[in-house]
Amino acid sequence: MVDTLPDPTPRDGEALVKTLACGICGSDLHALKHADKMVEAARETGAPFSLDVTRDVVMGHEFCAEVVDYGPNTNGPASPGERVVSMPLLFRDGRIEGVGYSNEVPGGYGELMTLSAALVLPVPNGLATEHAALTEPMAVGVHAVAKARLEPADAPLVIGCGPVGLAVIAALKLKGAEPIVAADFSPMRRALAARMGAHVVIDPAERPTVEAWREVAGMRPAVIFECVGVPGLLRQAMRDAPIGGRVVVAGVCMEDDVIKPMVGINKELSVQFVLGYTPDEFAQTLQEIAAGRIDVAPLVTGKVGVEGVAGAFDALAKPDAHAKILVEPWRA
Amino acid sequence: MVDTLPDPTPRDGEALVKTLACGICGSDLHALKHADKMVEAARETGAPFSLDVTRDVVMGHEFCAEVVDYGPNTNGPASPGERVVSMPLLFRDGRIEGVGYSNEVPGGYGELMTLSAALVLPVPNGLATEHAALTEPMAVGVHAVAKARLEPADAPLVIGCGPVGLAVIAALKLKGAEPIVAADFSPMRRALAARMGAHVVIDPAERPTVEAWREVAGMRPAVIFECVGVPGLLRQAMRDAPIGGRVVVAGVCMEDDVIKPMVGINKELSVQFVLGYTPDEFAQTLQEIAAGRIDVAPLVTGKVGVEGVAGAFDALAKPDAHAKILVEPWRA
Repeated sequence: MVDTLPDPTPRDGEALVKTLACGICGSDLHALKHADKMVEAARETGAPFSLDVTRDVVMGHEFCAEVVDYGPNTNGPASPGERVVSMPLLFRDGRIEGVGYSNEVPGGYGELMTLSAALVLPVPNGLATEHAALTEPMAVGVHAVAKARLEPADAPLVIGCGPVGLAVIAALKLKGAEPIVAADFSPMRRALAARMGAHVVIDPAERPTVEAWREVAGMRPAVIFECVGVPGLLRQAMRDAPIGGRVVVAGVCMEDDVIKPMVGINKELSVQFVLGYTPDEFAQTLQEIAAGRIDVAPLVTGKVGVEGVAGAFDALAKPDAHAKILVEPWRA
Repeated sequence: MVDTLPDPTPRDGEALVKTLACGICGSDLHALKHADKMVEAARETGAPFSLDVTRDVVMGHEFCAEVVDYGPNTNGPASPGERVVSMPLLFRDGRIEGVGYSNEVPGGYGELMTLSAALVLPVPNGLATEHAALTEPMAVGVHAVAKARLEPADAPLVIGCGPVGLAVIAALKLKGAEPIVAADFSPMRRALAARMGAHVVIDPAERPTVEAWREVAGMRPAVIFECVGVPGLLRQAMRDAPIGGRVVVAGVCMEDDVIKPMVGINKELSVQFVLGYTPDEFAQTLQEIAAGRIDVAPLVTGKVGVEGVAGAFDALAKPDAHAKILVEPWRA
């Protein structure tokens, strides 16, 4: 629902910014459907996260914005009128608000946001706004690959080439991993995977993914990036993984999953769950995009104004229509 | 059921041995209950394992035995009359038989077995037969700890102090890990955990295990060894693990398990499943026991003849009665 909310006011240590572009993330679609499960899981892990989707939420956490002002006694690394990106976190009242997942502060689908001035990073000159907005989702891939601790012999396999899988492919390419094998049922996503750096793309409808991976990887150790995030995928990745394989769970699955421990035990698998990125990884990702070492241009497949968000959510549910749709709230 | 079977005949490359002592393993109890699940999981992992519990099976894979003879054209490192241990595997007809889990060859609860001569290891002089028989279960702990790749800062927590947990504690002690924290509901098992090298033992009925662990471990990274192996335990370990924690699944759980991926994701947990040991680890474990660096004496809490196996299975189902019961098939 689109609504008009009061403009946010920056406090001490905060920047007021105007959203220039904000990507729509699969987690937002998940969150609308499974907010209760997100909150339950957060509670189970002791995280202070709470989100009430029956109250107002302005989503959007993948943004590039323009500095409008700073709160009292506050400076930042960019002047009003200059562009910034930021990790979507706001430190306020001793709490951490997730920008885009908060009932207290608006996210990037709105016109104005408050950000922690300490987290704001200037966008390097010459980097397009729509590319800077992809820092956040690309940082997810950089982090997942860092957590995988790849050894030179490891042969990666990316299951699912939505935005998370594509970010993982870009990060693998950045690391010089070879060959990068990626699988998706969607022809458009497979084409994007190749453009982002996958050396071999597989249609799982045509042949078993791991068999196709084995053909190029030989006996090298498997590192499988699970980038789909629906129930059953972890079990499937564990079933398909070769002996001694490592599974990196980068796709966010909010529902319960049934696994077979004996399958993990018999093959001595390891499963590494990953989430987010560190501040260093976020800043590094911005620089890699600016330097052209992560080429995000192929990923932007659509742009909408605020009124177009609902339609964009529908479009993103079809895997062959879009990769990343950007919201530009300043549009008519 | 106790039965009389024809004596096995050693083939080329095999040794015929007489069981002197053979430990009863929790997996044997599991296997009787869940043979179908074991076979199903093996099939799902592509392993050639098959076991039909409606046919004859002589179980027992934790043994010390005396060499009786060798097959044609075969030598081994021990002469007839000398004692040996062995990984419980037999290479025959291009297949690998699991000694103690095979319809084709008998395990250590029987009087005679055939073993692959290449796997046989002489028992060092002076090492008691009943202690040598514990090489196999202790090797499980040595392997689990090796797979955990402990860093100096890591603070281990052992959940469950049955034979697997106790073997993990012994292996942690061997590595010099400190403090070793272990938890079990059973007072007898807690006492054994302390004797095997645990510095702090916790009764989970008295206080939350991870809270008690945190008190001694401070902010050090958690490495949680799940050594119980019943459904729900992995989920529980994931729920209780601190952020960034690593869970090593050493307890064998044959049934499906429901986990919450979001819990793993939110805390960026890693889960390493482990099974068995390498030949090097098996040989090393025998030497460590012989040298007294792994003291297995506290673990042997009972001995029975073949007629006593059924009663021993019943006794082992009660966690406060026994740690390890040895079968001595030569007994009247």
